[in-house]
Amino acid sequence: MPVVTAARLREWSQRVLQAAGVREQDAQLVANSLVAASLRGVDSHGFHLLPHYLDQIAAGDVDPAQTGSIATESGACIVYDGCNGLGQVVADICCGHAIRLAREFGLGMVTARESNHFGTAAWWAMKMAAQGQIGLVFCNASPIVAPWQGKEGRFGTNPICMAVPVGKHEPWLLDMATTTVAANRIFKAHTNHEPTIPAGWAMDKEGNATTDTEAAYSGLLMPLGGYKGSGLAMMVEILCGVISGGAMSTQLGGLRVRGKKFRASQTFIAIDVLRMQPEFRERIDWLIDQVKSTAPASGFNEVLVANEPELRTERVRLKSGIPIPDGTYEALLNAAARFGMDDSGLRG
Amino acid sequence: MPVVTAARLREWSQRVLQAAGVREQDAQLVANSLVAASLRGVDSHGFHLLPHYLDQIAAGDVDPAQTGSIATESGACIVYDGCNGLGQVVADICCGHAIRLAREFGLGMVTARESNHFGTAAWWAMKMAAQGQIGLVFCNASPIVAPWQGKEGRFGTNPICMAVPVGKHEPWLLDMATTTVAANRIFKAHTNHEPTIPAGWAMDKEGNATTDTEAAYSGLLMPLGGYKGSGLAMMVEILCGVISGGAMSTQLGGLRVRGKKFRASQTFIAIDVLRMQPEFRERIDWLIDQVKSTAPASGFNEVLVANEPELRTERVRLKSGIPIPDGTYEALLNAAARFGMDDSGLRG
Repeated sequence: MPVVTAARLREWSQRVLQAAGVREQDAQLVANSLVAASLRGVDSHGFHLLPHYLDQIAAGDVDPAQTGSIATESGACIVYDGCNGLGQVVADICCGHAIRLAREFGLGMVTARESNHFGTAAWWAMKMAAQGQIGLVFCNASPIVAPWQGKEGRFGTNPICMAVPVGKHEPWLLDMATTTVAANRIFKAHTNHEPTIPAGWAMDKEGNATTDTEAAYSGLLMPLGGYKGSGLAMMVEILCGVISGGAMSTQLGGLRVRGKKFRASQTFIAIDVLRMQPEFRERIDWLIDQVKSTAPASGFNEVLVANEPELRTERVRLKSGIPIPDGTYEALLNAAARFGMDDSGLRG
Repeated sequence: MPVVTAARLREWSQRVLQAAGVREQDAQLVANSLVAASLRGVDSHGFHLLPHYLDQIAAGDVDPAQTGSIATESGACIVYDGCNGLGQVVADICCGHAIRLAREFGLGMVTARESNHFGTAAWWAMKMAAQGQIGLVFCNASPIVAPWQGKEGRFGTNPICMAVPVGKHEPWLLDMATTTVAANRIFKAHTNHEPTIPAGWAMDKEGNATTDTEAAYSGLLMPLGGYKGSGLAMMVEILCGVISGGAMSTQLGGLRVRGKKFRASQTFIAIDVLRMQPEFRERIDWLIDQVKSTAPASGFNEVLVANEPELRTERVRLKSGIPIPDGTYEALLNAAARFGMDDSGLRG
């Protein structure tokens, strides 16, 4: 399996995106956000997605020339029309507005419609947290999750994400699909020809639980904990597609769907938390210490808080590089070849 | 098992609370909120809790004379000091502020510290939804949930709740503990001498999974879906205890803990959603229809959305009354006797 440095992967991805017609600064943003996820071990949302982004651009399903515009602004609330631009480009602008509104009002909420895949929600929540604010991020997605008690797709994996500023500790960050696992973990197993997946992840087309990767790939994801995950997914759909005025539920396309726009909606809520609680950083540090002081249950030797596993992987991969499974490497090269690129510069 | 009408239960509960020293309008609010939960079949948060409220008052652990006051107000954000008043009284005032702020700014966030048990989060989210706003409610609670990989209590059941205004449909409302089940379902099994509970609900004191009600009662609840529920519980603790400046994690008492204040924190976020999306009511109706149109999975004959099961129970109980398990009835009478009351007026 090839192993490449983050720097090479970023530069190469940026060049391929530019060859596909993406402006330099936007290509850099997209490459940075994808490689950041790969560094953190969130391979499902890393450069693994680049071939799909390139497919979308080549098919005309996303318009990299668009950056979108504010549809309405009222008080601390903005509805943004992404105009089918790149998700990262739209999200970057929307995050900036949310931060501005939170500085003015204490809270800010920006909901984008007609957007595209924006990488990990975590990247955007961390952008807000880096400004000393709490960042909350939600997005809807392709309808590949059946509601509880159903067997047809109505919800996306609809993640919930929050990042907070801290004091002495590393950033606390939660970024979770409202399904048992993120869809991309099944897609990645499929790309890399892994025959089975763990129980509880997915159901087949008929609504029966399955551990067969093929059946899961053409089937549906399971909501986290049954009716609770189903309720959380609908909460996210309301905060995104229903409010934004964009696509809802079955109206969405997908990153892997050609000949149709994705039409994702994304919502960014920023809280200027130091205004409400000047000692927020000391208090969150205390809470993290308190949670980490818990005696480990049988089979574990420590208690981790959200973001610790990813930061550990990041430290390793910054040193030793990012492994690229063969299936992904092949997909990257095929996608790049379309724009006259090969892997020179990638493997060194 | 005695069955009583909601009206009788409300009036009797109010009289007992007044006998315990609660002001008339506050007693009415507390009685209404508890009986509303019982009507909806949420017995874990219904009048079943009244004896604990009375115990708290009798022990001086809650001060029914207090209504609290605003600690800080800045832009769309308020921190409220509940001054150890009744949770419902504090929550009612805070909801009012959140609605006011959302009318002014589009969004409003109120975080209360030094509060007490406020009944179901649903009651407060619905109060905001009744004003045409989205209501989000979070609260922290007694540390009876171990973080993922741990075996000591650090989190409460820390619910996530959202209610939204609708058009033709009945209100959509999600109110879920971030544990597999709400703690009160175990307490209720204990009060009613049920020997076992389902697997996956709880662990014993040593951190081993258990289905024994006694062991679960003195043990710990399990977070929903492992690390995800643990992350959601911490998200709620941050939005409540960390921001409010009140008690966090192990600093909290509990509804069943005497000689110590509860010190709960509660957060209310209101979104004046019709300002962002004038067609919100039509769009949420469409989404509900879309979800309910899903073909049922094997073993089910329809797909329900959040709040439907509770509304069905409410319709039944409005007609036929609310059943009171013998253990609960006995606890109610014992608690009332302390204030010189019996069950006259309750059973008719």
